[in-house]
Amino acid sequence: MTPDEFRRHGRQVVDWIADYLESLESRPVRSQVRPGEVRAALPSAPPERGEPYEQVLADLDRVLLPGITHWQHPSFFAYFPANASGPAILGDLLSSGLGVQGMLWATSPACTELETVVVDWLARLLDLPAALRTDSAGGGVIQDTASSASLVALLAAGSRAGGELARRTVYTSSQTHSSLEKACRIAGIAPGNLRVVDVDPRTLALDPEHLRSLVSADVAQGAVPTLVCATIGTTGTTAIDPVRRIGEICREHGGWLHVDAAYAGVSAVCPELRWINDGVADYADSYVTNPHKWLLTNFDCSVLWLRDRRPMIEALSILPEYLRNAATLSGQVIDYRDWQIPLGRRFRALKLWSVIRWYGAEGLREHIRGHIRLADEFAGLVAADEEFVLWEHHPFGLVCFRPRWPGLPIQDANEATIALLERLNDSGELYLSHTKDTEHVLLRLAVGAPSTGREHVHAAWRVIRDTYAAMA
Amino acid sequence: MTPDEFRRHGRQVVDWIADYLESLESRPVRSQVRPGEVRAALPSAPPERGEPYEQVLADLDRVLLPGITHWQHPSFFAYFPANASGPAILGDLLSSGLGVQGMLWATSPACTELETVVVDWLARLLDLPAALRTDSAGGGVIQDTASSASLVALLAAGSRAGGELARRTVYTSSQTHSSLEKACRIAGIAPGNLRVVDVDPRTLALDPEHLRSLVSADVAQGAVPTLVCATIGTTGTTAIDPVRRIGEICREHGGWLHVDAAYAGVSAVCPELRWINDGVADYADSYVTNPHKWLLTNFDCSVLWLRDRRPMIEALSILPEYLRNAATLSGQVIDYRDWQIPLGRRFRALKLWSVIRWYGAEGLREHIRGHIRLADEFAGLVAADEEFVLWEHHPFGLVCFRPRWPGLPIQDANEATIALLERLNDSGELYLSHTKDTEHVLLRLAVGAPSTGREHVHAAWRVIRDTYAAMA
Repeated sequence: MTPDEFRRHGRQVVDWIADYLESLESRPVRSQVRPGEVRAALPSAPPERGEPYEQVLADLDRVLLPGITHWQHPSFFAYFPANASGPAILGDLLSSGLGVQGMLWATSPACTELETVVVDWLARLLDLPAALRTDSAGGGVIQDTASSASLVALLAAGSRAGGELARRTVYTSSQTHSSLEKACRIAGIAPGNLRVVDVDPRTLALDPEHLRSLVSADVAQGAVPTLVCATIGTTGTTAIDPVRRIGEICREHGGWLHVDAAYAGVSAVCPELRWINDGVADYADSYVTNPHKWLLTNFDCSVLWLRDRRPMIEALSILPEYLRNAATLSGQVIDYRDWQIPLGRRFRALKLWSVIRWYGAEGLREHIRGHIRLADEFAGLVAADEEFVLWEHHPFGLVCFRPRWPGLPIQDANEATIALLERLNDSGELYLSHTKDTEHVLLRLAVGAPSTGREHVHAAWRVIRDTYAAMA
Repeated sequence: MTPDEFRRHGRQVVDWIADYLESLESRPVRSQVRPGEVRAALPSAPPERGEPYEQVLADLDRVLLPGITHWQHPSFFAYFPANASGPAILGDLLSSGLGVQGMLWATSPACTELETVVVDWLARLLDLPAALRTDSAGGGVIQDTASSASLVALLAAGSRAGGELARRTVYTSSQTHSSLEKACRIAGIAPGNLRVVDVDPRTLALDPEHLRSLVSADVAQGAVPTLVCATIGTTGTTAIDPVRRIGEICREHGGWLHVDAAYAGVSAVCPELRWINDGVADYADSYVTNPHKWLLTNFDCSVLWLRDRRPMIEALSILPEYLRNAATLSGQVIDYRDWQIPLGRRFRALKLWSVIRWYGAEGLREHIRGHIRLADEFAGLVAADEEFVLWEHHPFGLVCFRPRWPGLPIQDANEATIALLERLNDSGELYLSHTKDTEHVLLRLAVGAPSTGREHVHAAWRVIRDTYAAMA
């Protein structure tokens, strides 16, 4: 494709996206296709001859769009929404257009140095401790996901802990994201050495006394407590683990405190929410938050900070002949390949830079506050309806709740809630997901799409209430 | 940013990229900045108020471009070039614009099903065995990099091998990509259990007899041979390991044969190059190749195929409550989250689909053949010059060679070659990298940028020869 053809088709694609964003609301939120339907509509063999780009766009409309669940739809309330925004999409486009590979400083210095600048910017925006910024012994790095970031933290923790792999123990709660269990499997932590700490059944936050007793028993048996994961804003209900008390226990036994704030961490752009990070400055060895979850930056963009980068580099650095270069050997530069699982890396910093510059700190705060206001408003609607039970804890954009189903035993009520969820999602009018507290299935309504307004939240509540009324 | 603002700035960015591509040749290939220069030119604190997008683009020109090493420059011959092309950039843009997250089939069925279709297309284009396509017990998946793909293969191999982690052994050669050693570290393979197999000093291909003796000795001591990596097109010199003979040894002892064809694999779009895959159909348990290296698809796009997906899913699948859904529980769909390290995933299939449709099989073959012709032409220039020694093996786009430095002992000659390399790269006129055979530093000239033509290869040779003449 020549640069001139690229100009022409590039405009078509930009217009296609703008049209898509404008038409989003008229589409069903969750795709209505059945398994295999999209695949069956596509040829099983690739084309022998090239085709005009218009045909690609036509098939996108005809075949793919019906199979898309619209994550940017204003009534997408499932999981945590994957944020996107114009400047993020454009930053990503610039990254694709430049096509640089930032594995080493030397392979494109600006790719590395802009990343250093923006992760430091984000640390300032969130008022994270200076010890996590790059001028300290630590620093930040952009990863694809919090899954990968947590795996990197686990490997760094293992490198610091030393000793036999088979003796290393890791501590999470039942509410910790499943990616920590996956990281343990990948890193060869023995399945029996992943300890699941109890939670307070009222808040679903990790119980530090139980953590302390587990760690003490393990140490007594010769285990090496390697990493404890504290979550600020769990995936299920946005519970907040007591980071400070967990940090004290880590300090006593030398364990690495990893703070998973994948969803909620970015909300600290607002000073009134910085209480969520209590204990981080004193105790966190690593901290991860995802601008792609709630800071207007399209997937993938997860930022991991470490207090000390050395154990990570020790765990991950290998220097074959073909990567040797004067800048690396000088020790004056960062090679972010040693801060991640893969070798190659995209220029992801461009999209975060684009977002922060376009919105400014002010715009980012307004974005977060707007969603929290909407979530509060929705919670108010639920609380005012005696047919529903509100999960009281909702400091962010997520509201959990459940219908009462009067007269039904818990198991039946849970099944009825799942049936309600399926019926709601099948309608295409909104998309919710679910979780469980210690007993009940809860519906999750996460306000997070940038296009969501008051009208969408109120419409969601009407559909939920009416559908429940029809079923109850 | 409103859809209309996005339209306006989107056109600016598309034009910026087209202008960039048109002006590439006038820029120095390798960035000329010193460590810290880009960072020092950017503010250390983020902006409080949002800024116009024009300012972002202005800073891109003023601050970032001087710090960019231009991977798409026609005289970029270092590493393996990271391919990009118009349709790939546009496919990536569509992915960013849609903003879907394909962790589960249910979270956007088209994201999963298009991926299934395009990885099967690519398997057909490369004439890979039908056992690697999705209708078999195996199937393909797009990963970010071959590093991650190899890690997934290693975890699947471990899951199939069973037994204690501490007994598992892995076999690579000194020419195997460093990502395999990194994967072993990540997955907790004991450092002493990564065996480095000898290579034939003449071809740098893995010596199967040495592999056999290592495996036998390990088995005799109770080890569990878990994975052998055979490379088709090593990073250093594009050596080709004897896949068939390695496969026979794997078959005897139950080890998993992972074929790393990250760079060279895509060249099998040309029937005349399919000999490189001899043995794959009979023995490979997994096979990885990177469209982002040599198939016009911008980074990141690495395709991993497996003959049996079950051990991988067993190694990587975890189903927490918030991810449960009817489609997953039905067993009728693929959830690619279980085929990779992270949970979340981008809609990468769009760019590969765009590329295959725009170029067609015919265009992809012409792309590969053109580069091989240029590499052959360059090799001819080197071979005809008695001041230089050509590395005879160059079936793909990479040519390795070294100056003779008559009279210098090997160590001094190697230092002189590195000094020549630095001087060439400092010139900004071309960008090369290097490797080592068993004794000598070799210069690597990899033809791979889609914009590279005869004139660039001849110009490169003139600069190399003249610079050497000035130094010798």
